[in-house]
Amino acid sequence: MKIKYNLIHKDKNTKARYGLLETNYGTYETPIFMPVGTQATVKTLDPDEIKEIGSGIILSNTYHLWLRPGEDIVAKAGGLHKFMNYDGPILTDSGGFQVFSLANPKDISEEGVIFKSHINGEKLFLTPEKSIAIQNKLDSDIAMSFDECPPASASHEYMQNSVERTIRWAKRGKKVHSNPHQSLFGIIQGGAYEDIRRFSATETVKLNFDGYSIGGVANDGESKEDMYLAIDYSIPYLPEDKPRYLMGVGEPIDLFEGVERGIDMFDCVLPTRLARHGHAFTRNGKINLRNAKYKEDFTSIDENCDCKCCKNYTKAYIRHLLVANETLGQRLLSIHNLRFLIKIMEEIRESIKNDRFLELKEEFYHSYLKNNHSKTSKQKD
Amino acid sequence: MKIKYNLIHKDKNTKARYGLLETNYGTYETPIFMPVGTQATVKTLDPDEIKEIGSGIILSNTYHLWLRPGEDIVAKAGGLHKFMNYDGPILTDSGGFQVFSLANPKDISEEGVIFKSHINGEKLFLTPEKSIAIQNKLDSDIAMSFDECPPASASHEYMQNSVERTIRWAKRGKKVHSNPHQSLFGIIQGGAYEDIRRFSATETVKLNFDGYSIGGVANDGESKEDMYLAIDYSIPYLPEDKPRYLMGVGEPIDLFEGVERGIDMFDCVLPTRLARHGHAFTRNGKINLRNAKYKEDFTSIDENCDCKCCKNYTKAYIRHLLVANETLGQRLLSIHNLRFLIKIMEEIRESIKNDRFLELKEEFYHSYLKNNHSKTSKQKD
Repeated sequence: MKIKYNLIHKDKNTKARYGLLETNYGTYETPIFMPVGTQATVKTLDPDEIKEIGSGIILSNTYHLWLRPGEDIVAKAGGLHKFMNYDGPILTDSGGFQVFSLANPKDISEEGVIFKSHINGEKLFLTPEKSIAIQNKLDSDIAMSFDECPPASASHEYMQNSVERTIRWAKRGKKVHSNPHQSLFGIIQGGAYEDIRRFSATETVKLNFDGYSIGGVANDGESKEDMYLAIDYSIPYLPEDKPRYLMGVGEPIDLFEGVERGIDMFDCVLPTRLARHGHAFTRNGKINLRNAKYKEDFTSIDENCDCKCCKNYTKAYIRHLLVANETLGQRLLSIHNLRFLIKIMEEIRESIKNDRFLELKEEFYHSYLKNNHSKTSKQKD
Repeated sequence: MKIKYNLIHKDKNTKARYGLLETNYGTYETPIFMPVGTQATVKTLDPDEIKEIGSGIILSNTYHLWLRPGEDIVAKAGGLHKFMNYDGPILTDSGGFQVFSLANPKDISEEGVIFKSHINGEKLFLTPEKSIAIQNKLDSDIAMSFDECPPASASHEYMQNSVERTIRWAKRGKKVHSNPHQSLFGIIQGGAYEDIRRFSATETVKLNFDGYSIGGVANDGESKEDMYLAIDYSIPYLPEDKPRYLMGVGEPIDLFEGVERGIDMFDCVLPTRLARHGHAFTRNGKINLRNAKYKEDFTSIDENCDCKCCKNYTKAYIRHLLVANETLGQRLLSIHNLRFLIKIMEEIRESIKNDRFLELKEEFYHSYLKNNHSKTSKQKD
């Protein structure tokens, strides 16, 4: 089946909305944060752990799976769910984000993009049709249209031309999309240009996708202000009865800012990447568990957290694991960081239902920003 | 409490014995294979997984924990069980094996051993008293006496002198051992010299330890024949009412050979180290999951295995994880390899109870050795 979005309640004071998303693998509340499993696995975790932290939808990566193990192998395994043993909904991106970071600008044509494999330097060619064909074979529940992802610094002229091409690519992809179990999203681009975002949103919505993504907000060097403007400029033109997905964003502050502006879905590698570097989210900002001050700290990362890491392990032990290069350390932190974001989303949903989103936001910011200089999240895993 | 060994049944055709070992954390059947958690974690696994595969006792490493995080931090955490969140019995080695591989022969004296830290090259001094003091603080359930671990190639004269010193060290360690919850084992050395093994066993047993280890059999370059001789030469002088532990041995064939000669306990890093290199035990010998022939093999590693890895994942997926450097691959293989050895021990115990150990051994060897050139297991993790 295609996904179905049901808007249940709109917050009285903001554009935040609470809804239910019906998928092939059950119904999930939105707004939702989606953990990223780039290479058909959420780094360091197994499917039981992903479910235990309350994940609904997870993300996987078309570019990476195309290269390794190849979409045909995934298809022969019975699709991505069977291949990776995950019986929840999976969203695949289009590969565009990775490809554009590996391509030379002169190798972008109307037909598609020439770029070099990050694994062996092999020359590869990705087109809208190819991206959709790969995703059809992966058999994810939600596929993304292939879009150009221009840098924040692109000129108005470049951005307008790029968005027009992305719309033509969206049409081409939609035309060949042939998996009846799979939903397809269109992607809104346009940087921080109000007129281009409006154009991109209006034209993309005319193509009638199953949902709409807002892209181009998690590039390196993108400012938070531009991200918020990109959302503000896009949302008014998106239909109320379709989900809205802000791609590549997962810094806690950005989750609040996105939800406030009407976003329903988020994904980001930030929680697992931070974990691999020894960092943990807390309500009082991020902490670095490698810090010597945790050597004899026999308390959990967050006493109010209900994750397996916080219920069973001390900062001193996690620090020991990190210092001794034991992968269990990264795994426990991945569990905690993902649970942290998923828990925030649970609280956000509850606050929307009770028209108290802004109070929750203020509470959270008050403690989180006290010691924390929040940066824009980046997408590279 | 101290451990208590109850001999329940002796195999009619061999020296294999089935027994029950009472510990601070429950009673376990022997012969038993003990997974190794060198740095207060069984590499890539968490305690739930360790229990799920049917582990009883696990091993941890005095030398490594002394250096990182330090025994005082473990003691402040409430002991090793609390530090690593494992509520099963833990055995610690003496540190001797690691220390001697890092020491210069001229730095071994009656007092102890001078050697260089493998982490930062710092000069360190380990004595029998210090080893026991560290283990007392770690609060493991079973501690080992500090012994010299001479190479297989040592001369008769060197070996005799070494064993005499190891016995003096065992006395010194026993004298300062002060943890009432902790059992203490003596270690039999002597290489493949029958007279020295007899001397070592006889003299060590006079000191009345809670159990006896047979050491010096898992050094690099040691032959299987010497290992089996070392057991044969030691066992006759060990009391029937105490457990016998063959240190550092975990190659499946060696488990059978050890059990047949009267061994009750084994440990080895082999299953987890093989896993990290992409290898898996099967009843038909070891296989390398990185091999291209598994690219489209959608069957499990072993259809008859009851581990989480074999019940849920295909060779093709595990190969993908290994090739893509995803740690879940190593983790699933660690689960499988440990479960493989633990399952063998379950079958071995059942066979002893029914006086059909030799039949099981023959069955196992027939399929396992068909394609497999078994090597002596090594202890380095």
